[in-house]
Amino acid sequence: MPLQPVLIGGEWRHAHATGSFRSVNPADGTPFPEEFPVSGWPDCDAALSAAVAAAAGLAAMPRERIAQFLTRFAERLETNAAELAETAHGETGLPKAPRFTEVELPRTVNQLRQAAAAALDGSWSLPTIDSKINLRSCLAAIGPVVVIGPNNFPFAYSGAAGGDFAAAIASGNPVIAKGHPLHPRTIRLLAREAQGAVGDAGLPASTVQLLYHMEPDSGIRLVSDPRIGATAFTGSRGAGLAIKAAADAAGKPVYLELSSVNPVVVLPGAVAERGPKIAEEFAGSCLLGGGQFCTNPGFVVLFARAATEDLIEQARKRFEAVTPPPLLSSGVARSLAESVQALRAAGAQLVTGGSPVPPPGFRYANTLLRVTGERFLAAPETLQTEAFGSAALLVTVRDAREAAAVLGALHGNLTGSIYSDSRGGDDALYGQLAPLLRERVGRLLNDKMPTGVAVSPAMNHGGPYPATGHPGFTAVGMPASLRRFAKLQCYDNVRAERLPVPLRDKNPNGRMWRLVDGQWTQRDVGA
Amino acid sequence: MPLQPVLIGGEWRHAHATGSFRSVNPADGTPFPEEFPVSGWPDCDAALSAAVAAAAGLAAMPRERIAQFLTRFAERLETNAAELAETAHGETGLPKAPRFTEVELPRTVNQLRQAAAAALDGSWSLPTIDSKINLRSCLAAIGPVVVIGPNNFPFAYSGAAGGDFAAAIASGNPVIAKGHPLHPRTIRLLAREAQGAVGDAGLPASTVQLLYHMEPDSGIRLVSDPRIGATAFTGSRGAGLAIKAAADAAGKPVYLELSSVNPVVVLPGAVAERGPKIAEEFAGSCLLGGGQFCTNPGFVVLFARAATEDLIEQARKRFEAVTPPPLLSSGVARSLAESVQALRAAGAQLVTGGSPVPPPGFRYANTLLRVTGERFLAAPETLQTEAFGSAALLVTVRDAREAAAVLGALHGNLTGSIYSDSRGGDDALYGQLAPLLRERVGRLLNDKMPTGVAVSPAMNHGGPYPATGHPGFTAVGMPASLRRFAKLQCYDNVRAERLPVPLRDKNPNGRMWRLVDGQWTQRDVGA
Repeated sequence: MPLQPVLIGGEWRHAHATGSFRSVNPADGTPFPEEFPVSGWPDCDAALSAAVAAAAGLAAMPRERIAQFLTRFAERLETNAAELAETAHGETGLPKAPRFTEVELPRTVNQLRQAAAAALDGSWSLPTIDSKINLRSCLAAIGPVVVIGPNNFPFAYSGAAGGDFAAAIASGNPVIAKGHPLHPRTIRLLAREAQGAVGDAGLPASTVQLLYHMEPDSGIRLVSDPRIGATAFTGSRGAGLAIKAAADAAGKPVYLELSSVNPVVVLPGAVAERGPKIAEEFAGSCLLGGGQFCTNPGFVVLFARAATEDLIEQARKRFEAVTPPPLLSSGVARSLAESVQALRAAGAQLVTGGSPVPPPGFRYANTLLRVTGERFLAAPETLQTEAFGSAALLVTVRDAREAAAVLGALHGNLTGSIYSDSRGGDDALYGQLAPLLRERVGRLLNDKMPTGVAVSPAMNHGGPYPATGHPGFTAVGMPASLRRFAKLQCYDNVRAERLPVPLRDKNPNGRMWRLVDGQWTQRDVGA
Repeated sequence: MPLQPVLIGGEWRHAHATGSFRSVNPADGTPFPEEFPVSGWPDCDAALSAAVAAAAGLAAMPRERIAQFLTRFAERLETNAAELAETAHGETGLPKAPRFTEVELPRTVNQLRQAAAAALDGSWSLPTIDSKINLRSCLAAIGPVVVIGPNNFPFAYSGAAGGDFAAAIASGNPVIAKGHPLHPRTIRLLAREAQGAVGDAGLPASTVQLLYHMEPDSGIRLVSDPRIGATAFTGSRGAGLAIKAAADAAGKPVYLELSSVNPVVVLPGAVAERGPKIAEEFAGSCLLGGGQFCTNPGFVVLFARAATEDLIEQARKRFEAVTPPPLLSSGVARSLAESVQALRAAGAQLVTGGSPVPPPGFRYANTLLRVTGERFLAAPETLQTEAFGSAALLVTVRDAREAAAVLGALHGNLTGSIYSDSRGGDDALYGQLAPLLRERVGRLLNDKMPTGVAVSPAMNHGGPYPATGHPGFTAVGMPASLRRFAKLQCYDNVRAERLPVPLRDKNPNGRMWRLVDGQWTQRDVGA
């Protein structure tokens, strides 16, 4: 069977392949028929050159056209929702409904529409004008963006349709999407619709390009090539840090979203007040989607009390009552088994699970482990290993001091939650522990599990290293996520007619927020 | 003579020194008497631990106190202006007036006052509230900041008083200042006044700490230590890239301001219209302060015409008419001679200068070199070597195509200028060349030389790699420069009384700009 073509320079063309691969239905292990190429460097090189031309073309276009592309793409995804959900279901084992048709596709479409609105509005670029000295600046497109998507969100984080893609396009950049090898058939459909929307909106032909896969060496070369502007990567820590090292050495911005155990602290008053409800929330969040979320609650700090044992017992029952779904791949199942083994070797004890589940599908038992705070503190590095899947480590601490030590030993995470009672009984403890958790997470929650990342201007889907590569940026939420893919451009004494539209005296759309002479305003300069 | 003490933990204490050094008066080469320590790792380690405590203390303080510190520090610098100018003059050879008393000290004081205003106002942190889902976020202090200042601005970029210092403090962080070995006596005075202002405002004792110098290994370890938040560095490319590599590998944000040749393009119509005036402006800018500015115009693109030869001749006369001042150090003089030699070896021809000037002082003749566009394009890497000092390379191009090729071969720079005629004769050329220059510089100027960096909200003192490490940030200008030293913190469903003040429903000062439900406003939430 011939290799599937890649999308370069506006055309589906033969790949310069160094190998090939097929995707597999994780529910039964059978491969799909199509052979997809592992692209060699000539494909990357051609995509880069085409992207440079597209970047220049985009820079000369009114941003209405970019918004139109994003809107048309969203509409096309809605039109093709059934085919998309079916295909993604086949490659991931995740249910068509509610997961794809009711949650992930609507979210993806919503992100694209929010990005369109942000592009049209233009306020994301923080236009700043000092009229007295005719000095003006704003953020502007950074150049071609490589977007490398993860295994667990074939739509919402896809290199060819997800949040990074939407943000990179909305800020004016062409995207070179790198697919995830688990779902090439899905991203092929996304790229097909993106390409259609490029035509609908009349954007440069190479605004969206797709390479399904590549050798690590070519990937490293791609993210450090002088022609790119930036890279966005969502995935494993190992691959992400290799990409970061290469991009950093080349002076290229790189935005990572890596692993996270998402600590949850349940204070004693909360356990006493509503232990069973918290056990239920925790199990629901941890078991959702086979636990294959970057915000999966995988690390729970509990105070050693009798009521805590009840909570653990209730969680155990819930973990055992739910049939484990097929995981995304044999690799995910193997990695989960290895992580659980590492946690056990470091002293964690099994509460339930801890073993593979027989086929069909790559399955692993829903797994709860526990360890004392004292034991955790003897091996804090290993015992905060992410076990990607429906697995969590419960850490029982003796007192506030031990809880503080445990939190103090945590690496950077995307999220951290604290449950406390509603009558103020936990407030003193909260006051002691919240600052420690705050420093280690991007999003601090109260009385809430971390799964479910709202696409809101106020979201931070980011956090301290090594959860990401820079704690100042978020991968989700407009307009902030657009600012990752931008450079600051200043105009000093530049003649009025030569200024970019957002920096002219006249507000280009009457609603763009600009910092004019120290005041945020939607008015014209001098008005 | 005993070693001068370092400022650690709020006290001037004995250094754990691995060596010592003295500063030198560059006007006559005589050393000053004080011996300053080269700190070993124990000093860095102690400063880091103290800074962590200070960071926690600052986080718990109202931002009014931080503003008060910055204001008091500014006042103290004004009070001590004569002593400061005298000391800096002694260590740099730069004139007390106008350079220090009329330009650099007022600018430094102005930066501190602008930082105080930004801290008080709070809008810099981009508070963002989604009231419907009670999701709130803002930028917050990143943690202890290491500020490493350059040789050429003993005040305005000093680790203990300059723009990076002011921005890091205003965003709520303690600073570990690393002095430049050329002017330890000056930074000692700055740290003394900073320490006094820390007392005046009641900030944590370790808010400002000072190490005069350290071995490279300790510096590398310092910027990659888990206890720091970020590093700001202004200086040479070699040292800066070593620091960047270490910080990157540790996942620590690092902001660099490195070398830049600041290309100036003079279009033919401008030469015909006002060649002598442009020659004058160029010579004035290039010779200012011995040319020892990061925005010194060191690379001029001219079209090969008879009138251009007149302009070059006028510039030559001006370069020869001005007596070269003492350079900052023997190292600067040596490096300038080496750079000029490298340019000549790559094919540049001397127009004037090109040799050391006899003592007293470390002097080098004002130097103009020239090369054709064709020759430049044969060795573009070497021929864009920065010659730090009063030296510039003139590149004469045949036509627009060659000009475009020259600009296309340039690395990232802080600034780029284009001079064009006032009647539209150069507009077509401008349209061809400006986009090429725009991509390669942080600040694009029209009809203006790049020296003089206004401290304005609209300034970008930054640019593409390798002028800096990230093109999205500026080192000068409030409020944007504060955002380098911040992490994004999100609060999801956090109870009202636990929110940081800027994210509560009530606008804390009635003038903080916040993005509430998609609109920038100074009002309370719900008002």
